[in-house]
Amino acid sequence: MELTHINDQGRAKMVDVGNKENSLREAVARCYIHMKKETLEKILDRNIKKGDVLSVAQVAGIMACKKTPDIIPMCHSIMISACDINFQIHKDENMIEIKSIVRTNGQTGVEMEALMAVSAAALTVYDMCKAIDREMIISQTMLVKKSGGKSGNFENSQIK
Amino acid sequence: MELTHINDQGRAKMVDVGNKENSLREAVARCYIHMKKETLEKILDRNIKKGDVLSVAQVAGIMACKKTPDIIPMCHSIMISACDINFQIHKDENMIEIKSIVRTNGQTGVEMEALMAVSAAALTVYDMCKAIDREMIISQTMLVKKSGGKSGNFENSQIK
Amino acid sequence: MELTHINDQGRAKMVDVGNKENSLREAVARCYIHMKKETLEKILDRNIKKGDVLSVAQVAGIMACKKTPDIIPMCHSIMISACDINFQIHKDENMIEIKSIVRTNGQTGVEMEALMAVSAAALTVYDMCKAIDREMIISQTMLVKKSGGKSGNFENSQIK
Amino acid sequence: MELTHINDQGRAKMVDVGNKENSLREAVARCYIHMKKETLEKILDRNIKKGDVLSVAQVAGIMACKKTPDIIPMCHSIMISACDINFQIHKDENMIEIKSIVRTNGQTGVEMEALMAVSAAALTVYDMCKAIDREMIISQTMLVKKSGGKSGNFENSQIK
Amino acid sequence: MELTHINDQGRAKMVDVGNKENSLREAVARCYIHMKKETLEKILDRNIKKGDVLSVAQVAGIMACKKTPDIIPMCHSIMISACDINFQIHKDENMIEIKSIVRTNGQTGVEMEALMAVSAAALTVYDMCKAIDREMIISQTMLVKKSGGKSGNFENSQIK
Amino acid sequence: MELTHINDQGRAKMVDVGNKENSLREAVARCYIHMKKETLEKILDRNIKKGDVLSVAQVAGIMACKKTPDIIPMCHSIMISACDINFQIHKDENMIEIKSIVRTNGQTGVEMEALMAVSAAALTVYDMCKAIDREMIISQTMLVKKSGGKSGNFENSQIK
Repeated sequence: MELTHINDQGRAKMVDVGNKENSLREAVARCYIHMKKETLEKILDRNIKKGDVLSVAQVAGIMACKKTPDIIPMCHSIMISACDINFQIHKDENMIEIKSIVRTNGQTGVEMEALMAVSAAALTVYDMCKAIDREMIISQTMLVKKSGGKSGNFENSQIK
Repeated sequence: MELTHINDQGRAKMVDVGNKENSLREAVARCYIHMKKETLEKILDRNIKKGDVLSVAQVAGIMACKKTPDIIPMCHSIMISACDINFQIHKDENMIEIKSIVRTNGQTGVEMEALMAVSAAALTVYDMCKAIDREMIISQTMLVKKSGGKSGNFENSQIK
Repeated sequence: MELTHINDQGRAKMVDVGNKENSLREAVARCYIHMKKETLEKILDRNIKKGDVLSVAQVAGIMACKKTPDIIPMCHSIMISACDINFQIHKDENMIEIKSIVRTNGQTGVEMEALMAVSAAALTVYDMCKAIDREMIISQTMLVKKSGGKSGNFENSQIK
Repeated sequence: MELTHINDQGRAKMVDVGNKENSLREAVARCYIHMKKETLEKILDRNIKKGDVLSVAQVAGIMACKKTPDIIPMCHSIMISACDINFQIHKDENMIEIKSIVRTNGQTGVEMEALMAVSAAALTVYDMCKAIDREMIISQTMLVKKSGGKSGNFENSQIK
Repeated sequence: MELTHINDQGRAKMVDVGNKENSLREAVARCYIHMKKETLEKILDRNIKKGDVLSVAQVAGIMACKKTPDIIPMCHSIMISACDINFQIHKDENMIEIKSIVRTNGQTGVEMEALMAVSAAALTVYDMCKAIDREMIISQTMLVKKSGGKSGNFENSQIK
Repeated sequence: MELTHINDQGRAKMVDVGNKENSLREAVARCYIHMKKETLEKILDRNIKKGDVLSVAQVAGIMACKKTPDIIPMCHSIMISACDINFQIHKDENMIEIKSIVRTNGQTGVEMEALMAVSAAALTVYDMCKAIDREMIISQTMLVKKSGGKSGNFENSQIK
């Protein structure tokens, strides 16, 4: 199999999706953000009150999802029909799991949009907490599954 | 210590940096992108010829660095004075290490810009290779070090 | 009836429009901008010559209309098929009425696009005249009517 | 006094601020958004739980503030040093008052940034509630006061 | 024939494309960039090694293509289905010919997108080489041909 | 002399301008747009009435000038202190000469901003007239002169 995105001159191009059919496509991505115990407590504490790091991260992730073709050079501009983000707190591991789900009814998939959404959400958590914890780590950013399109369904075998 | 970015109503705000002094500030960030052996070989092979996934990732990272305040809600717009990205191939581990260095001469640091640069570069590698490897994982996205500003120098203790 | 845009975790999401049908949709919005008598005269005078505050406001409104999903977090990116803006001078009241009409052939309405267009046009009038009149007021920004989509036609009952 | 922003050919230009001195500049703007009694109750109710229309509006306002030169054609790109937004509930009048405060340490004022912030926040409230109340009205968008720069302090005489 | 884009008030508007049919549309544009003999040699030399001015120009052109409606006021936002750029070296004339091909399956053509792609690519070449050659000239920016849509095929008679 | 913008790995980087001094910098660029006699007449005719292709092109050029770092990958984000565009009609040659002047008080020059301004203005003229003249040609896009910065004054020897 060959790398797509490469033209005859050996340079990058946008792959032609003009002959692909419109279909309902969905992608789910996730990442973790690891932090100090106290950082997680601050986030949760604020959450219980009103200041809400995760609300801002949510908005950031959704807006970044729409900006994917501005950031990823060979991505097509597409009409996202839905985007949602969820945060799951893993207290024992001092980390937050961020999961996005993105849908479109179009000619190309939304894997990059889903990955962009979790990445921007995680970076926003970092930004809002970096004054108290510069050593946060974002890890395990990956595609969980996708459906729709010619290549059909995919579930990441690395997620048990 | 308190979470910054939170106003009296418990909502997010841009922290006021108007009283901070201009100083030379630098930040270094890195992440890894893990892939299948064959994917890495394709990337390197193309690289030796002319098609260059990493060139596109490099441009993507630099452009994203400049767009950080568009993506991270509470980030200040600043004038980046320099941005560079390096790729180190870890053949034994089938991964690429992406490292960014960003500088400014301003009132606020460039940690987020450095993190954004490596994140966008890694996502671009994913995008350009996803047709042959959907299970790539981006991990260990973190700040390596930063200098300048009132809080002074920082080196991440988690990097040996 | 429930607030849309809110997910199970109580945070905002993009509403899923993937199951909505494409239909011709249109929205009309308007606002007023009130100013000093002399400010209005300057605008009209320039207009008669060649310098044209309203031409710039027109371009600003149309360009902002296209950027609506960049500004309004939960708005979908859509393909606007038409956008126009009209200015009506109310000399007796020292104000300009700004009206936009926006159309799409898509899965979601263009109310926000129409409101964004008049808002950006009004703010541009403010910007270009603020050196001579800082007390301009933008008021009555509202949806006039909309058609198309499942919810059908709407006419604002507050406009006589 | 003449309209600025107009060149010799009668067309718009960016006013030259290169000879202005850097100074601490601040601007405060506000607007109202009027709604049905039940709409306000829904917003407040959600607020007490977790879904928070006003959190999203806050983020939207701050991000739009940074994008002002993208939307207002003759505005200079400047480095905002701080931006905050507050919401005051006027229960008797079924309206929310939105107030922004923006600061810079630069060569040109931030009036437009402050006005953009409240406008985008108000439009976001509209967007998130439009499914239950299409007749919301945004009004009284105006500059409250500004300080700094050669023209010095200004307080809007129309605000009692 | 009348100028489109002009409304009843004599101001610009986005032409309504809502009644146009979706069709496969393609546009090809080109431009030249003339430079000193040594500049071209440097570009080619770097190209043979690894530093690749043309790779960056390629990415710039493709990303600019997607941003056309942000730059050209009356352009519609459309979904580009493919974009590619080629560089042809004319050694005898010390110039590079830049050619773009853009496709969509939509209601309006991609002429502007193709022209934007070559323009941004050429400006990027200028930017990356301006330290050694400030007198580079971009010329002959033009539409080569287009197909699809109601007006059908067009080939530029000025290209022999 | 070596190509700047190239790092040790042979890939592009943003040149470090952090050690450059702030100075008043100015750049002037120009291009021509050639058209059919009747196209030029339509533009001028509309201009005399009220519809004004050149007003829209002016706004487009100024807004694009501010977006230069979004389009040209290795360009620094800078604060433009002034931007103006002029149009000179060459009736005998059926062409319009577009000239921009851009100023900053910063660490890096504004040559690219000036070139971007004329390019976007010319492309906008093309867009607004393409329905009546697809064979318009943009040519002679070049830097006319620049001043400020360490390299000092430059006047293009190819302009007589």
